[in-house]
Amino acid sequence: MNTPDIATPKGFLFAAVEAAIKKPGRKDLALILSERQAKAAGVFTTNRVKAAPVRLGIERIRSGKGQAIIVNSGNANACNGKQGMIDSLETSRIVAGALDIPEDSVYPCSTGVIGKPLPMERIRPRITELVAGLGLSSVHDVASAIMTTDTFQKLASRQVRINNRTVTITGVCKGAGMICPNMATMLCFLMTDAEVALPALRQALHAAIRVSFNRITVDGDRSTNDTVLIMANGLAGNSRITAATPSFKTFAAALASVADELSRKIVRDGEGATKLVEVEVLNARSGREAKKAAYAIANSPLVKTALYGNDANWGRVMAALGYSGVNMEEGKTDISFGRVRIVRKGISTGLDDSATDEIRQKEVKITVNLRMGKASSEVVTCDLTEEYIKINAEYRT
Amino acid sequence: MNTPDIATPKGFLFAAVEAAIKKPGRKDLALILSERQAKAAGVFTTNRVKAAPVRLGIERIRSGKGQAIIVNSGNANACNGKQGMIDSLETSRIVAGALDIPEDSVYPCSTGVIGKPLPMERIRPRITELVAGLGLSSVHDVASAIMTTDTFQKLASRQVRINNRTVTITGVCKGAGMICPNMATMLCFLMTDAEVALPALRQALHAAIRVSFNRITVDGDRSTNDTVLIMANGLAGNSRITAATPSFKTFAAALASVADELSRKIVRDGEGATKLVEVEVLNARSGREAKKAAYAIANSPLVKTALYGNDANWGRVMAALGYSGVNMEEGKTDISFGRVRIVRKGISTGLDDSATDEIRQKEVKITVNLRMGKASSEVVTCDLTEEYIKINAEYRT
Repeated sequence: MNTPDIATPKGFLFAAVEAAIKKPGRKDLALILSERQAKAAGVFTTNRVKAAPVRLGIERIRSGKGQAIIVNSGNANACNGKQGMIDSLETSRIVAGALDIPEDSVYPCSTGVIGKPLPMERIRPRITELVAGLGLSSVHDVASAIMTTDTFQKLASRQVRINNRTVTITGVCKGAGMICPNMATMLCFLMTDAEVALPALRQALHAAIRVSFNRITVDGDRSTNDTVLIMANGLAGNSRITAATPSFKTFAAALASVADELSRKIVRDGEGATKLVEVEVLNARSGREAKKAAYAIANSPLVKTALYGNDANWGRVMAALGYSGVNMEEGKTDISFGRVRIVRKGISTGLDDSATDEIRQKEVKITVNLRMGKASSEVVTCDLTEEYIKINAEYRT
Repeated sequence: MNTPDIATPKGFLFAAVEAAIKKPGRKDLALILSERQAKAAGVFTTNRVKAAPVRLGIERIRSGKGQAIIVNSGNANACNGKQGMIDSLETSRIVAGALDIPEDSVYPCSTGVIGKPLPMERIRPRITELVAGLGLSSVHDVASAIMTTDTFQKLASRQVRINNRTVTITGVCKGAGMICPNMATMLCFLMTDAEVALPALRQALHAAIRVSFNRITVDGDRSTNDTVLIMANGLAGNSRITAATPSFKTFAAALASVADELSRKIVRDGEGATKLVEVEVLNARSGREAKKAAYAIANSPLVKTALYGNDANWGRVMAALGYSGVNMEEGKTDISFGRVRIVRKGISTGLDDSATDEIRQKEVKITVNLRMGKASSEVVTCDLTEEYIKINAEYRT
């Protein structure tokens, strides 16, 4: 799945180099620079164990400002005690010095193995090279440099007209572990040349995440390093977007669309996955219950292996609903695979063959109607295959 | 793993036949009979979706009496609407008639595929054959007939002296799906010739389950069919055990030991598993938190695949603790693999090589010291392998 050239917003420069952080032979250190200081917003993991760069990012994002992101793959810089923060601070200090920008407008990010100190002796000397190379690399090189178990680059872009100016929003992300979305380290960097007020930027980012990344990861269940950052540098020259202007809707919709495309790419690249699976729960007693039920199905290894085996095994869906803890009654519940209702009010409709045809597709939708209330929720996941085991049993060694 | 001949309590008879419930060529219908009516106690799944035989068992066990268990594999008789209950009732009625015992002292049990009606036309005619064959089969045949994805028979037995009489407790169980213990249908039938008062029997059963099956399955997260039944027929001739007699401790300890052995056999036979893994969490703020933390580690697919890959990947253990939702601080946490402390107060001790040696064993213990309080908990699980996926992707088809 190669991404064709995509538009990038004005005033953003990219660089990527090889620092042999985990192993030699691939680019693993990248820099994103906005030529001018940007408004910035971010969302970080809720895991109690937070990597050093995440703790630093949480602190710095309060200012609402950002200009550079320095990111490495191969090492998460998590669980390294005080040394972790020392290394993240040093990295951002060197970048700030080389670019002559304020240190607190630099966001260091890391992804990879937990509990190994960052190899600073290999990162330090590469930073000058990175800065010198700014503009020689493309956003594709950044997408490639941040990959860990990812099998393809993840990029998305939208252009919208706002006050007769073209505004571009481009995002790059990585993430592939998906059996329980909780431990897929997910990094996402969004860039736009929109001129947008900070509260509007934050609002649009949170709304976009709600309908994208937060449909694939449970809030309470994230990795040590999950990070979504956005920088908006205003170089498109549009008149300022605020939450009150009509243009806000256009901007927020485009941002949500970029985030949605990126989050689906993460699921599609789920380690070893062969299918994209949408799970929709209708008519639950509350939104919280709808989401809980959808996640119980989406996270059930038995449901996920059945999907892999092209088996319309609705019994496993029903059992997952039963132990999900939400209010449900077997005799009220419908289950559909694709367009085929395989269970009506708790009883098999006998349409196993046509349900199996639906399951064979590369994109499968499971719909559950609980008939308990009016709330609904949708979650996106993937199937579970032998390849997942192989990747994760061999990831470190 | 063949079980040698084991003692069975006085007055219990066994039979097993082939009814071709799922496919021909193996015994899949078994009968356990106590020659005389026994005191009975049981514990059933807490899944909201309960199979018909489970609903019937919950109703009947209130009487505290039981004499026969009729059990089939290959079909769970779950999610079959009203027909499910009709079929379970008919099965127990035929058994009661053939044995001339009260209908409500018969417990039908089922395990296998969900959502397919019981093939009564194949079960009905076999019941006479079963009853006629009582005493010609052994408890091993029962163990074999209840297997689904199990790869070996699961039996355990203890004999203890109570008031100069030999009391025998024997159990047979099945269960193998273990990635999330929640969906492993587990059936366990315990038999004893002890003379024991009903309240004491119930108390001993619940205590035994707490330290065995409930360490491998979360209460709220069970399959549609999980069942543990015990029958005590008093034929050993000991003076009656009550909660107040000194013999209660002896009896309860022996029962707990049988249950513990059986529950470990289930884990050891975890679908595709290569290792038995004990996870112990020490010094949590509460017992609930200790258990929650232990389950977060034990259920983490990334931890389980790392164990399979002989990778002492403690970062995945730390991340699971971080998202478990319990009170913990990275900087206070120790993690050990076997006897090797790989993390001390959040920092790697660098003992990767010796930790890896521990991980290579067939039995691995992960110990976490949270230093947050005084509560502890232990959970038993297994690793996660490609074989699990194969088994579960192909289970129905």
